Amino acid sequence: MEIDKSQKILVVGLGLIGGSYAQALSDQGYEVGAITKEASDLQFALSRGMIRHGHTQVDGDYVGGFDVVIFALYPHVFLQWLKDYQHLLKPGALLTDVTGVKVPVVYPVQQMLRPDVEFIAAHPMAGRECCGVVNADKAIFNDANYIVVPTAANRQEAVEWCKSLGRVLGFKRISVLSAEEHDQMIAFLSQLTHCIAISLMTCNNSHHLKDYTGDSFRDLTRIAKINEEMWSELFLLNKEELLRQMDIFIDKFMLLRNDLAAENVTEIKNMMRQSTANRAYFDQ
Amino acid sequence: MEIDKSQKILVVGLGLIGGSYAQALSDQGYEVGAITKEASDLQFALSRGMIRHGHTQVDGDYVGGFDVVIFALYPHVFLQWLKDYQHLLKPGALLTDVTGVKVPVVYPVQQMLRPDVEFIAAHPMAGRECCGVVNADKAIFNDANYIVVPTAANRQEAVEWCKSLGRVLGFKRISVLSAEEHDQMIAFLSQLTHCIAISLMTCNNSHHLKDYTGDSFRDLTRIAKINEEMWSELFLLNKEELLRQMDIFIDKFMLLRNDLAAENVTEIKNMMRQSTANRAYFDQ
Repeated sequence: MEIDKSQKILVVGLGLIGGSYAQALSDQGYEVGAITKEASDLQFALSRGMIRHGHTQVDGDYVGGFDVVIFALYPHVFLQWLKDYQHLLKPGALLTDVTGVKVPVVYPVQQMLRPDVEFIAAHPMAGRECCGVVNADKAIFNDANYIVVPTAANRQEAVEWCKSLGRVLGFKRISVLSAEEHDQMIAFLSQLTHCIAISLMTCNNSHHLKDYTGDSFRDLTRIAKINEEMWSELFLLNKEELLRQMDIFIDKFMLLRNDLAAENVTEIKNMMRQSTANRAYFDQ
Repeated sequence: MEIDKSQKILVVGLGLIGGSYAQALSDQGYEVGAITKEASDLQFALSRGMIRHGHTQVDGDYVGGFDVVIFALYPHVFLQWLKDYQHLLKPGALLTDVTGVKVPVVYPVQQMLRPDVEFIAAHPMAGRECCGVVNADKAIFNDANYIVVPTAANRQEAVEWCKSLGRVLGFKRISVLSAEEHDQMIAFLSQLTHCIAISLMTCNNSHHLKDYTGDSFRDLTRIAKINEEMWSELFLLNKEELLRQMDIFIDKFMLLRNDLAAENVTEIKNMMRQSTANRAYFDQ
């Protein structure tokens, strides 16, 4: 089963990612509607042709008209939305999301969901330092990875459908992971990197740093500009995995620190050679 | 005193930075010569018009013909070169360097140096992940910072001359710091960031990471591809300052880790707000 243009698509939550989904799908010729809290966001999306219509309130007749619903909400808002409004969904509707953690989202959602609709989870690995629909830009998907996260409750057709959605959105690489694999991987690749950037950026509060910095510090702290509401929620939802990854990092960092203190040049060089070799896979 | 085109310039060491200096100065109309170990590097620089002439051996008559000598060597090689060959320098010559640490370089150099020549230290905060003269590119200076590092042994004219060299090379921002300030700042902004990247990149040796990563991991590990000979030498020369900065970072990182373990959401959000505010200065 592939996504096709007979399927009417509802985006719930017009932020950076929801807006970029809406833009990409509308530009491909899909009929896209939206429900979002702020009238100004709706107005912006309408004026830019990202959506054909929309509401700021949840309207039963409106929600029931969509074959596909994409949730681009904070995790706790997403769960609450389903509790309050899942009875409004069209029978047979396919639901998907963009949430950055999966175990604490996909299992509760599938457990509470009506049996006549299906939720297939996905994570678009794309973002920007600036948020909101006014910064939406489908181009952020072009060089990015898209991960479909099925469980035993999903039909294979739904997995294929979700992969085709990733292709239509323009993602470069589409993968499939279990919720557990996803959360472990995301703790390392994304949440740990944000913890590092936050820590580094708060080590020194001088305003003069930028006069002396090279590219390396700028690169390592780009993501230190962070939406604290969203990221603190994601960190806590994936607490155990993130703590595990933070501890692995601390061990490696302390190894380097102690080799430096002891002037173990051979060990320091070995670690640098290993990091150079590992990094080379990213340049292929 | 400004640099001017009557001054003949010798670059010792045609690597990435030495080559980029040579290219920038030749393109501005200066007469640039070079001494470098490998005949192939010399040939490359000659064929690209980076230099007008050069040698692979230290030739006394040749060295004595230059008003300015720029050392782009590893620190220990630079110190040894001066011990061996400083008697060949032209009386009144101005020397400068590109070394990434200053206290262990500038004081020993100035102490051993003939009284009729002057060494004024500088640090071009520019680089690339790929090294060697074949990767030289004067464009790396355009958006970069250049730091002049005088001591009490330097005349103000030499400081002004060195600043004018930075302008001719095309640097965006030129600053003056003491050697101690420089090494403290560089331990934080550059050496610590490399330690973090190396540690992060050696936490997980899977070759499949790139299928799932977003920009953040790629950004944080770009500098994990590292020249282990040069960087291990720079780390050890600045050991005390780097250890101090590593310990400050570990404290911040552990604070975040422990706030996460205790689910202190308010503290986590506060740290994120501080990092966002600090990072904003870099976007001005």
